[in-house]
Formats: sequence, C-alpha cells, structure tokens
Amino acid sequence: MAEIAVLGAGIMATALTFPLTENGHNVRLVGTHLDRDIITSIQDSGVHPNLDLKVNEGVTAYQLEEAEEAFEGVDVVMQGVNSFGVHWAGEHLSKLVKPGMKIISVTKGMEADEDGTLHMLPEVVKSYFDPELVEQVTWSAIVGPSIAGEVAVHHDTCVVFTGDDQESLDYLADLFRTDYYHVWTSTDFLGHEIGAATKNIYAFAAGLGQGLLIKEGKENDRYVRYNYNAAVFGQGQTELRQFMKLLGGIPETADGLAGVGDMFVTSMGGRNVRAGTYVGQGIPFSEVRNDLMKGVTLEGVRAISVIGGALKPLTERGIIKEEDFPLCRYLYEIIEEDAPLNMPWHKFFGGEK
Amino acid sequence: MAEIAVLGAGIMATALTFPLTENGHNVRLVGTHLDRDIITSIQDSGVHPNLDLKVNEGVTAYQLEEAEEAFEGVDVVMQGVNSFGVHWAGEHLSKLVKPGMKIISVTKGMEADEDGTLHMLPEVVKSYFDPELVEQVTWSAIVGPSIAGEVAVHHDTCVVFTGDDQESLDYLADLFRTDYYHVWTSTDFLGHEIGAATKNIYAFAAGLGQGLLIKEGKENDRYVRYNYNAAVFGQGQTELRQFMKLLGGIPETADGLAGVGDMFVTSMGGRNVRAGTYVGQGIPFSEVRNDLMKGVTLEGVRAISVIGGALKPLTERGIIKEEDFPLCRYLYEIIEEDAPLNMPWHKFFGGEK
Repeated sequence: MAEIAVLGAGIMATALTFPLTENGHNVRLVGTHLDRDIITSIQDSGVHPNLDLKVNEGVTAYQLEEAEEAFEGVDVVMQGVNSFGVHWAGEHLSKLVKPGMKIISVTKGMEADEDGTLHMLPEVVKSYFDPELVEQVTWSAIVGPSIAGEVAVHHDTCVVFTGDDQESLDYLADLFRTDYYHVWTSTDFLGHEIGAATKNIYAFAAGLGQGLLIKEGKENDRYVRYNYNAAVFGQGQTELRQFMKLLGGIPETADGLAGVGDMFVTSMGGRNVRAGTYVGQGIPFSEVRNDLMKGVTLEGVRAISVIGGALKPLTERGIIKEEDFPLCRYLYEIIEEDAPLNMPWHKFFGGEK
Repeated sequence: MAEIAVLGAGIMATALTFPLTENGHNVRLVGTHLDRDIITSIQDSGVHPNLDLKVNEGVTAYQLEEAEEAFEGVDVVMQGVNSFGVHWAGEHLSKLVKPGMKIISVTKGMEADEDGTLHMLPEVVKSYFDPELVEQVTWSAIVGPSIAGEVAVHHDTCVVFTGDDQESLDYLADLFRTDYYHVWTSTDFLGHEIGAATKNIYAFAAGLGQGLLIKEGKENDRYVRYNYNAAVFGQGQTELRQFMKLLGGIPETADGLAGVGDMFVTSMGGRNVRAGTYVGQGIPFSEVRNDLMKGVTLEGVRAISVIGGALKPLTERGIIKEEDFPLCRYLYEIIEEDAPLNMPWHKFFGGEK
C-alpha cells in the first residue's frame, strides 16, 4: 500500500485517484489556491464538482495551507497543476518534496526562450528545485489519450508512463494498473512530452471545420466536413512528427498512444475544440478569448502561442525552414493576429504538387 | 478539355464528376450490371439516387451495353468499381481500354494468395490485360480521406493521386484540381495502396466502443468512450505503419493523407463502423452479416477477411511474428469466428509493460 500526495485538485488528478484507491492506495489530494471550493466540496460531500462524481474512500482532501502535512512521508508525488500554473507548482513542490519520493506529472505543455528554444515542463519544475534534490527524486509523467472523466467511470484507457528511470516507471505503473486503466512505460521522456504538448496545438484546429459548417447553416446536413477534419488531422500528425524530430524525441513516439492516439482523443471535443469552432464560425479569436470563453483555461491556445511563437525565431536562426509547420504557423496567426478562417491547404504535406 | 470514361456509377466515381465537369471536362459514366437503376435515374432526371444529388451538365450516363461507345476515344479511364468487383472490372476494362489511355482507380483493397502473399488491386486488374497493353497505358489511383458526398457538395477535400508515372499524375491532378478539391501526387504507388487498403480494417474497429456504450445504456452519458476509440486508433495506426514496412511502401506514407488522415475519416462513420457498433453491442458478427446488414457492401470486413486471413500463413512462414498485428488478428476472429468483444489491450503497442 502506497501513500500518494497530489498537488492540484483538477479533474485529471482527481480522476487518477480512482485506479489508485481501487488498488488499495491512499491519496492525499491538495488543492491549489484556485481549488478552494473543490476541496471544500470533497471534504463536505465527497463530490468533485467539475467531475460531478464522488471520490472513493481512501482520498483525503486538503486545503493548500495543509500541504506540508499532506506531503509528510509519502512515496509518490503527483503534479496535477495545469500548464498555466507550472511555475507556481515548481515553487511549491520544491519545498514539499523530500529525497526518495517519486514525482509523476500530468501537466502537458512547453515553454519557450526568446530565441525559440523550447523547454519541456518537467524542466521548468526542476529549475525551482535544489540541484541536489533534483537527483534525489525520480521524474515521470503520464501521457496518452485520456479524458479524465472516462477514467473516473472505469472506461478502458491506455496511457504511457514516461520518465528517465525504468524502475520508478515499473513501480508507478504497478500502483495504477487496473482492468480498465492500461499502462505502458517508456524512457523516451522527451519524445512523450513533445507529443503531449504539441498535440494540444491541433485540438484547436479540430474545431474549425465544424464552425464552418455552422456558419454555412449546414450542421444538420447529410454531408458534413469530415474530409476537412481528416486533412487537418493528417497535417497535424505530420507536424507532430516533425516536432519530434526537431526537438529530439524518438520518431516512433509520434505513433500510437502518445502521438496520434492522444491527438485523436483531443480532437473529439473539449474546450480547445470549442474555441476553434467559434473561429470557424467567423468570430475573431480575440472575441472568443475576451468574451465568449473568458476565464476558460485553454491549454491548446497556450500551446499555439508558445510553440507557434517559437517558430519565427527558429526560422530566423535557420533551424527550421519557412515552409515547415504551415498549420501551426497559421493557427498562431488566428490566435495572435485574429486571422480569419482561410486554411492554407496548398502549403500542407510539403506543398500541393 | 478532356474526355473521361468511368466504369462503375457508385457514389465515389460519380462524386468525382463534379470537379471534372466544373473544370470543363466531359464525363461518360458507365454503370455496371448492378448500377442499372442508377443509370436510368441519371438519364431520366440527372439525379444519382444514392448520392441524392443531381449531376452536372457534362456527365452522360450509359448502360453497360453501351460501354464500347462510351470508351471510344477517351483520354482518361476511371475504374470506379469497388473491391468486390475488381475481377469483373479487370475483365471488362481489358477489352475497353486502348493504348495511350490513362487509367485512374478509386478502388481500395488487397487480395491474398493461399501462402499469405498480398497483392494490390491494380495488379489484379492488370492481370486481365494483354501484357503489351499494360505497358501502353498508365496506371494511377486516388487515395486519401474523401467521403464522396462531401466532394460532390464542394467541401474541401485533400487527396493523393498516386502511380508510377509522374507525368500522368501531373496531367490527371490538373484535370481534377479545383478550389475545394486539393490534389497531391506521389509515385509511392505501393505505399499509398497499402494505406488505402489497410485503413479499412480499422474502420470496423472504430465502431466497437460506441457499441459497448449502447450495450451499457450509456450512449447519452456525459462520459463516453473516446479513450477507448483513441487507443484503438493508435493501435490501428501502429499496425498500418507495420503493414507499410512489411509490404514495401515508404514508411512516411503511413503519415498524412494516405495513412492516418484516411483512417481518421473512415473512423468517423459509415457502414463498416456501423457493423463494428453492432458487434460492440454484443451481436455475433455472423448475425450482422446474414441479417442486420445483409446485402450491404462492407469493404472493411472484406479487408479484415483478406488481410487478416493472410497473417496466419505469413506467421507460419516466419515473415511476421505471432505478436505482430494483434488488433487485425482479433478483428479477424470477430468476423470469421464470431469472437465476442474483449479487446486484447495488453497485446497492443508491443505488449503492456
């Protein structure tokens, strides 16, 4: 029986308490300052309000002020804060984590330097840690196609636990594996982080075709826009693989769960797809951001902003070519420059020829 | 202005008359013996009954008996008969085609010898031709994510024209390209045919998760089975790439339009997905084939039967390993042995470990 402390009481971190507790482990769920109401709700009724489900016995909810107590003597630390809060999480975890603990993260995303150099989020968290402590713990992450609520209601889910240390990965996989939560392990940590971060870019694109249908008043017609979505998906996967090569992941990691599998699930719906749908309808993205979806966490948009923004300096430095990543570049124009929907098909797949 | 003769008046061949005629070309659409009512309908009212649309001016419909007249002096021959009729088509085309004509096929699939050796469909058609004539024409095919009706109503569609002869591909692409029909060309003929044939296998699998939801009475629940579908899609793409390597296509062809793009669109719906949905609900496939979907053309099921059936002799001959293609093997058990739904997750992605 293991003791697991979780920082962040979002839906993904909370969903993962289901397989853990069903395997007999105890989870100490610590909310951030933004999760105050969630923690109160779990403490009062056991219900996570956003997930709309009662958590299992074996989950204890803590407000942020009790974090130190919650992290006392745990075996595993789960980093459950989303990409917007990764610096905050690094700061807090650097004080809560002790030597020997195994850290596993559910956060997906990247950060960029001004010259376009991209960094994976575990690196950002590590940067807040004492260098000695960085080496005294192990670092892992959960990636792959996984809608949180589906895990919580025991729907079959296949994921990859990735990290530098195979022994930790085997230990962690063993804590989580159930008859519905299927876990593969891989030490291509970088490749898996790249896949998880870049696939979010293309979730936004997955909404554009549906938006266009709505704009045309055709959303209930016999013929929809699957051809459109499939071409966008195919170009998305082509670019995901290019990112894998550019940033040093194993190219095969673009296949299967961490690449196309995760991109598939992300394209099926959710907030980023919804944001893309508005743009497809003809609404400038600034209006979506500031009005229609004000305050909604859009990790896909953040991914476009960070990674798409890095493409310009990377091109200027000659690291990539002008014609590389046409979809990501165009999505960047949509979200940063309010570009209207006008898909640059002819630039896709190496150029129409 | 080119003259194009089409053998087979199915929805895909007919949909492709839209870009052709809008570019000013003339199309002579010849029905097979199964298309008699379709041809009569087009002759009487211009409407293709299955597509539920009126064809453009510039399309002339012919019954099979008038095929010779229709093929007289054309520049391009389109092979529009589906995989079930490919021998029939080979026989007929061998008499109708004349030296200098450019043949382009929309048929997807493979055939297998008893020892598991797989053949692409253009090879099957060629086998009916005089060897001299084989060399006096050019051979090409259209692949990529393309739902016929969407092409017909001018929804953006990105496809690949593939064949051995780049000059023919350029000529053909030029005949078809419009502002909604986007055409890439590739001389990886084999790879593109492999992608087009094998992706059909996984369309059937794309229905299983939805069927399971229905069986559980959860199809209107908040949490569906996208994780399930995404893992199946990821494994499907992994196997598609393995087929590409096994059969000699360029591995990159598994990306983009001809691989994941086409698999994406095929997974979104259609007859093969529907057949899989029934199996997911718990109905043995023999009942689906002989009762619920009796008489419905299921190219995905045929692909599973042919390609899945070839895996056993290929394994016995040591060409592939027992653990290769676990999803395709399992789908073969479903359709040939009425296996119940019990997804072999632990065999996917090289084995859960």
